[in-house]
Amino acid sequence: MQTDNFIPCFSIDCVVFGFHNNELRVLLLKLKNLDKWMLPGGFVSYDKDVDEEAIKVLRERTGLDDIFLRQFHLFGKKDRISKSHAQEMVDKKVISEDLKKWFDQRFLSLGYYALVEYSKVKKPEPDPVSEAIEWCPFSELPDLVIDHVDIVQKAHQRLKKELNFQPIGLNLLPDEFTMSELQALYETILNKQLDRRNFRRKMLAFDILKNTGKKRTGNAHKSPILYSFDQEKYQQLLQADHLF
Amino acid sequence: MQTDNFIPCFSIDCVVFGFHNNELRVLLLKLKNLDKWMLPGGFVSYDKDVDEEAIKVLRERTGLDDIFLRQFHLFGKKDRISKSHAQEMVDKKVISEDLKKWFDQRFLSLGYYALVEYSKVKKPEPDPVSEAIEWCPFSELPDLVIDHVDIVQKAHQRLKKELNFQPIGLNLLPDEFTMSELQALYETILNKQLDRRNFRRKMLAFDILKNTGKKRTGNAHKSPILYSFDQEKYQQLLQADHLF
Repeated sequence: MQTDNFIPCFSIDCVVFGFHNNELRVLLLKLKNLDKWMLPGGFVSYDKDVDEEAIKVLRERTGLDDIFLRQFHLFGKKDRISKSHAQEMVDKKVISEDLKKWFDQRFLSLGYYALVEYSKVKKPEPDPVSEAIEWCPFSELPDLVIDHVDIVQKAHQRLKKELNFQPIGLNLLPDEFTMSELQALYETILNKQLDRRNFRRKMLAFDILKNTGKKRTGNAHKSPILYSFDQEKYQQLLQADHLF
Repeated sequence: MQTDNFIPCFSIDCVVFGFHNNELRVLLLKLKNLDKWMLPGGFVSYDKDVDEEAIKVLRERTGLDDIFLRQFHLFGKKDRISKSHAQEMVDKKVISEDLKKWFDQRFLSLGYYALVEYSKVKKPEPDPVSEAIEWCPFSELPDLVIDHVDIVQKAHQRLKKELNFQPIGLNLLPDEFTMSELQALYETILNKQLDRRNFRRKMLAFDILKNTGKKRTGNAHKSPILYSFDQEKYQQLLQADHLF
């Protein structure tokens, strides 16, 4: 790793949430020789935009491409990395001795997050310094390095907030879906049960759903309505930034 | 200025919105010898938390204390500061020659914002390097340095978003207020007219308003109801992070 090209004291961490079969997962890497997992992350070259570099870092570490990342918080506490962290990384041969000085700095880390339907993206591949990469269940995170568990939790809080003024689901659900399937997506992300009638009322108030006129058949007792997203109104609402 | 203590390549900019008499303003400093205005900002010491330093920077540059700042975006484009900026600052005697090297770096700048009723905070005072400090109308910003106009606009976008899932008004309105006064606050921030009945319906749905049982009198034709915030529910909604 050529650290001379990197802006000092600054790193990037990416929280990529994966949604599939009503379960929320987080993409994590396991470094060789270390019994802990970490978020895919890295550093920013002097000649690159920070947002551009975040996408590149994610691609280089996981092979994932075209993931829409959003900044959500700068983690800037002075003691977020323990003083022994770099030495431990050297002792356990995670990094070579000559990188110790670089990792011994104070780092401010900018957190990014994304939400994808993970069966729809290509299978991520670990980079050469990692021995594994996995979609780990959000509800049972493994042991994470430094403050990465805080970064994941804060990203999840932001994601929950975003649900209120921004439609989600366009890339997470099939083209036609029932109100129950949409509700299950929200319940998975919010990690709580929602009232069926309230949810339906709020969703319809967004005015982004089209009744396709079709029904899901095959169930003996019910034939729920199939909806699709009104692409134009969905995009307008995304642009609008507000519901008032 | 002792630049050795600062984290390199990293700065802070604070967008403090002031609300008063249905007008939105932004707190800006004018540097001596420069015909441009700037946001109050500064740098982060190695031994300080970033959020803590933002509050300190604001206090040192403006005298304002106890302002609740929130991070909203990291401005990290590689070309956000023109290559001639530091030289221009030296030429115009804004900074001394020995500071040129420091200001010639690439800076990533973390934007913070706040919203205050500016007649309720003490009058800000310019720091020694500034010749003026003013609450400038948001609708007619003066000429600003580097990308500060983008920072202000982005802060305003975020503020508009926040209105959707977070009640505002507790420190911006008198203890008892009419629905029209609350609507005027939202209209000022959103910079658009809102439908009276829709606004009323949405606001009441938040369930944070108490009907005081009193009416504003003095007007010949109407006596609108006076509301107050239900402090407990207001705080709950702030904590809840979401409306679903």
